Amino acid sequence: MINPSVTLARVRASTPLVHNITNYVAMQTMANVLLAIGASPAMAHAREEAAELARLASALTINIGTPSIDWLSAMGEAAHAANRAGTPWVLDPVAVGATAFRRQAARRLARLRPTVIRGNTSEIIALNAVIDDQSRTTGGGKGVDATDSIEHAEAAAQQLARSTGAIIAVTGPRDLVCDGERIAMIDNGHPLMPRVTALGCALTGVIGAFLGAEVMGTQAAPFEGTVAALAYYGLAGQQAAQQAQGPGSFAVQFLDALAAMDETTLDREARISHRSCKH
Amino acid sequence: MINPSVTLARVRASTPLVHNITNYVAMQTMANVLLAIGASPAMAHAREEAAELARLASALTINIGTPSIDWLSAMGEAAHAANRAGTPWVLDPVAVGATAFRRQAARRLARLRPTVIRGNTSEIIALNAVIDDQSRTTGGGKGVDATDSIEHAEAAAQQLARSTGAIIAVTGPRDLVCDGERIAMIDNGHPLMPRVTALGCALTGVIGAFLGAEVMGTQAAPFEGTVAALAYYGLAGQQAAQQAQGPGSFAVQFLDALAAMDETTLDREARISHRSCKH
Amino acid sequence: MINPSVTLARVRASTPLVHNITNYVAMQTMANVLLAIGASPAMAHAREEAAELARLASALTINIGTPSIDWLSAMGEAAHAANRAGTPWVLDPVAVGATAFRRQAARRLARLRPTVIRGNTSEIIALNAVIDDQSRTTGGGKGVDATDSIEHAEAAAQQLARSTGAIIAVTGPRDLVCDGERIAMIDNGHPLMPRVTALGCALTGVIGAFLGAEVMGTQAAPFEGTVAALAYYGLAGQQAAQQAQGPGSFAVQFLDALAAMDETTLDREARISHRSCKH
Repeated sequence: MINPSVTLARVRASTPLVHNITNYVAMQTMANVLLAIGASPAMAHAREEAAELARLASALTINIGTPSIDWLSAMGEAAHAANRAGTPWVLDPVAVGATAFRRQAARRLARLRPTVIRGNTSEIIALNAVIDDQSRTTGGGKGVDATDSIEHAEAAAQQLARSTGAIIAVTGPRDLVCDGERIAMIDNGHPLMPRVTALGCALTGVIGAFLGAEVMGTQAAPFEGTVAALAYYGLAGQQAAQQAQGPGSFAVQFLDALAAMDETTLDREARISHRSCKH
Repeated sequence: MINPSVTLARVRASTPLVHNITNYVAMQTMANVLLAIGASPAMAHAREEAAELARLASALTINIGTPSIDWLSAMGEAAHAANRAGTPWVLDPVAVGATAFRRQAARRLARLRPTVIRGNTSEIIALNAVIDDQSRTTGGGKGVDATDSIEHAEAAAQQLARSTGAIIAVTGPRDLVCDGERIAMIDNGHPLMPRVTALGCALTGVIGAFLGAEVMGTQAAPFEGTVAALAYYGLAGQQAAQQAQGPGSFAVQFLDALAAMDETTLDREARISHRSCKH
Repeated sequence: MINPSVTLARVRASTPLVHNITNYVAMQTMANVLLAIGASPAMAHAREEAAELARLASALTINIGTPSIDWLSAMGEAAHAANRAGTPWVLDPVAVGATAFRRQAARRLARLRPTVIRGNTSEIIALNAVIDDQSRTTGGGKGVDATDSIEHAEAAAQQLARSTGAIIAVTGPRDLVCDGERIAMIDNGHPLMPRVTALGCALTGVIGAFLGAEVMGTQAAPFEGTVAALAYYGLAGQQAAQQAQGPGSFAVQFLDALAAMDETTLDREARISHRSCKH
């Protein structure tokens, strides 16, 4: 039984600094989402300071949405620094199935022991295929948008959790979190969410904040923290949709809903179910 | 006679993947605009993957708003790849008149056979002067904002269409589309549109989506597709302005209006007129 | 006695071109803020054109929020070009206390005679320590957010004004402007402002526009222009908050409020007080 409000309250109380090396499209939205939830965002990508910031931060997130050689190098250094400092970090393998460059980048990063890997169904299927040394992805995503079902992604998530040691968060109409043994399904969310760019990327930052929030020296367990972040995020989407007229007003209402989320309502409306992995 | 709703319906039915190498300021807005119209945006700029993505995509757009040597190199590779694959592509020569660096960049790209070139009056006049090997632009734009009239731009658009083989879209209070023989004028739009950054850049993406939308193996003709995109975009601006209190709320309403556009209303309210080139 | 509306009216009448080399997170918001106030924003960072643009512009702003070696090089060239052209320029030393890379970058830029340096309390304290050759900052900011009081920052602002020759603008719940002799305090603003990313960075652009606005060949004096910018910006925040439900809707209302600001109201509601430096 997970009460997501417990972790949200930790974030609000401790204002975790989340260092993000993310794509250009998502930076502003991600920063606004992190401010709305009560965290403190830092975006920085230079090799000269990536490791230093990763050590300062309570969590690190790495997103390959607009990759380049220089940035990938900084991502590697930051991940190593986070590991050395015991800082949790989250990998977001955007559109990993689209190009050879992304497959190679994601393979390297996934081997650097991320705490959590978050992607849509097509990304998780593609990343699992890459790690599994299949020469071509079997996922259907041609770009950044998902075209595979959550059922199709479940086996990939389980295999990827076991091969990387990471908790895998597959997000979409239904979210799935898997640590290789346990599975949680989260049924919050709204169809307008994928109509706004970067909400998936920004969710990666929220997971980072939930992993990094620390109260009296203790952090949330990563599996529970990830599940809590997804339920909170999805419920804010449901609340925002009640007043939205389309994707523009939805994006505005969503930030307001994240900031205004009542903790009692969150625990009552979170739709989380648990079971063991099938295989 | 152009019914813009026909092309909009194609976009909504086929969800074209539009690959954009655009400027940092515009990326988020452009992605949100493309999602709002029913397309699938992909932003990526690395040389290592530019050609691969340009081949995957239904259309490519290239925008020199925040240019650098590395990005220009990727733009060239992507344009070549699009040409080889028969993928339509759109050039947006932002502030081409402002610096020697931009004039050189735009000259090279304009020679790579873009399907459409979109700019404001000052940009089209400046680009035509650059292609015409005039040493200095005669346009008045000092930055990214236009300071020339559409009448002044018409001769430049016609000459540029003939010298590059591209369809030229000049956007402003009145829009003009010219393929060297025909001219269409579009009188939709609203004065709040240039008060929001990146709406011109994002329009370049919408033209890309309209060129790339494919239904049952057929694409819209580029001239008609471009005209349809401008009428749709301008009408959404008119609708958004009805509820806006200023540029902030206008930007929000505009995304909602793009997503909600009724196809019958579009055909009824589109103000498109046609004639031949004068010379 | 400063009437902020005088400088706002200059901006609206002269549409100053403001060249910004700023961070990726802030670019879009900064451009929208500058358009809302009636200025013309230009974002560009390439060394190949930085100096040319800095000469074309009425003002230059430099922000180290997402620094890299290449961009810092262009910042230096642009600052030199602005100085040679007599163009005012504003330095925004984002998170200068966080890493050695930022301390070094900010030290170099602060020595290039910026007209104004704007930061939050922690940034001004950290930058002063850097310039003062203290090996470690004494400020408390761990990231981009401020953790020091305005009283703590006052002595640092005064020392920094004297060592750099710049006017120092310290922004937060209370703003302070110091030129080494005089101090102005501005008590406009609202607690939602730091809950929206990049509003501090965008304010740096507004200061640039207020410094660069020229009517009949005369510019506002930099001290008075800076104070006017802060009062205007803070009052727009107060007005926006009246209708906002949270940080998302606040950001939208804020752009509307900047654009709609009535000049008489501005002079009536501006809360500006003056005194001499204490030491």
